[in-house]
Amino acid sequence: MSTEFSLIERLKPRLPGNARVLVGAGDDCAVLDLGEPGWHALFKTDAVVEGVHFTPDTDPRRVGHKALARALSDIAAMGGEATAAVVTLGLPGIEPTVEAAWAEAAYDGLVALAARYSVAVVGGETTRNPGARLLSVSLVGRVPAHTALLRTGSQPGDAIFVTGELGGSLAGHHLDFEPRLREGQWLRNWGRVHALVDVSDGVAGDLGHLLTSTVPAGGGLGAVLYRSALPVSRAAKLRARAGDLSKPAHVAALTDGEDFELLFTVAARDAVGLLDAWKLAFPQLALSCFGRITPTPGIRWRDERGERPLVATGFDHFAAAGAKSPGDHA
Amino acid sequence: MSTEFSLIERLKPRLPGNARVLVGAGDDCAVLDLGEPGWHALFKTDAVVEGVHFTPDTDPRRVGHKALARALSDIAAMGGEATAAVVTLGLPGIEPTVEAAWAEAAYDGLVALAARYSVAVVGGETTRNPGARLLSVSLVGRVPAHTALLRTGSQPGDAIFVTGELGGSLAGHHLDFEPRLREGQWLRNWGRVHALVDVSDGVAGDLGHLLTSTVPAGGGLGAVLYRSALPVSRAAKLRARAGDLSKPAHVAALTDGEDFELLFTVAARDAVGLLDAWKLAFPQLALSCFGRITPTPGIRWRDERGERPLVATGFDHFAAAGAKSPGDHA
Repeated sequence: MSTEFSLIERLKPRLPGNARVLVGAGDDCAVLDLGEPGWHALFKTDAVVEGVHFTPDTDPRRVGHKALARALSDIAAMGGEATAAVVTLGLPGIEPTVEAAWAEAAYDGLVALAARYSVAVVGGETTRNPGARLLSVSLVGRVPAHTALLRTGSQPGDAIFVTGELGGSLAGHHLDFEPRLREGQWLRNWGRVHALVDVSDGVAGDLGHLLTSTVPAGGGLGAVLYRSALPVSRAAKLRARAGDLSKPAHVAALTDGEDFELLFTVAARDAVGLLDAWKLAFPQLALSCFGRITPTPGIRWRDERGERPLVATGFDHFAAAGAKSPGDHA
Repeated sequence: MSTEFSLIERLKPRLPGNARVLVGAGDDCAVLDLGEPGWHALFKTDAVVEGVHFTPDTDPRRVGHKALARALSDIAAMGGEATAAVVTLGLPGIEPTVEAAWAEAAYDGLVALAARYSVAVVGGETTRNPGARLLSVSLVGRVPAHTALLRTGSQPGDAIFVTGELGGSLAGHHLDFEPRLREGQWLRNWGRVHALVDVSDGVAGDLGHLLTSTVPAGGGLGAVLYRSALPVSRAAKLRARAGDLSKPAHVAALTDGEDFELLFTVAARDAVGLLDAWKLAFPQLALSCFGRITPTPGIRWRDERGERPLVATGFDHFAAAGAKSPGDHA
């Protein structure tokens, strides 16, 4: 909902902290000192809801996978590893037998992913939730002390990178994606990432987190993005080619969201070395440098017609503009 | 829902563990070794849903209080302390302005309670949840290593204790109760509790957790409860006296639920010493010994008419019997 961002922003200053909190609300995970020598703890919660994040006819195994994968993506975005999960399952409870079968299948999907990353599932509450099935997953994890990849720290001139390909997630990727845990841990070990976030709202939106986290909202950093380097997914291209959709492929890549790739900045002088090392470590996964950080606010877009503002008043506006005049962006 | 218990039981054997899990799903909290020397970590999630745990016209501050207090009650039931919370807020999102005001008030209630117990609130996700407002709270906490108060460990002959008074929670207690954190920690330090659970379903139901956690379901331990010693709340007595309700006060005390008191067992030889020490520590809070553990399964009820089975086929049956013939139980 459109009030979401402002609500969290308004609430944040009121949230109590304590001596164990290193990073509170506002990054992909909270970072805590829970006393393990040499490590910091990560803590995160995330929920998927029927009618919002999946449809009534979605295979419940894929829903269970997605519910855990989203939360794991936030652990990945800190460069961390996940230790244990607790799950709350909300069910309308109208037809108990159907609900139980759905719940078991959802757990199958969740448990298969958990086992793959050695995540223990240590609690499984259920509650009635009139109107929609819901899966809420909370994770504790850890990261070597003082190495968590935060949203803050970008510098003017930094190169902007993203893993994988963007756009068209609704065709299936949003239900089946693999959280970038190994890649996040590798980037943490590489040791020269300035700032990192996972792509849930779309690059155009999530890049804003990297630009505004470092400085007061509205001030400070901006970015310029290169159309020729944007990694547009096959799914986004196919949908655009089908012609019945109002979004050109690059607009889909920037705004569709739920890509769950890693978006990050590094000093320009480290960019080439990173690309070389990445190719050796992850030969199957694209890593694209598609922009740079600028010292003035705002995101600008560079294509064959020159450079101009990409986002005037935020994500929604851009998506709407794209929808109204696809020819202008094609 | 009635399938809840069997669903969790069916799922439990499938849940993956790992080397850091000391107690997985099935107790009030999971117990983990997260590496803090001398301490074990606690991990818990719990949700409250509109139409199930509160009504649309409930003061949102009280909803926020209840959401956190329920989860804190589970930390209390391990003898632990809470470190940090993450919160997911689900809102139907039909009227954004109304929703934002509701959300802020709910956070007010939650934050006031968190601050009182030095619990940091380190994450606040929001999502759309069609049909009902929902607050899901997850907590990490800790307890000195090897001292967590578990549901397992009761012995035949043990005395059964409960804090506070029972029944009639719906009159207000379920929204305003204070989680028994200090009492739980005191009992842990006292050091001779055999098994402990918090009372969320009602003593008749939660006592079952103490009887069946130690041994395979259906086998093993039972209990006899003394009507004369059962601490019945004023609210339950008032409702019963009002006459228009089908539940006699002691049935309400056994089955209403949402008391969030601590129910526990100790060796009979420790009972008097415990009562003496408790009176010094908590002069304002009742502690009642109202039964004992028996070596044969089933819960029996002793009153002026003698001793007979309390629960034939479970919680629902007993409540229904109470509803049908209040005179028989009065």
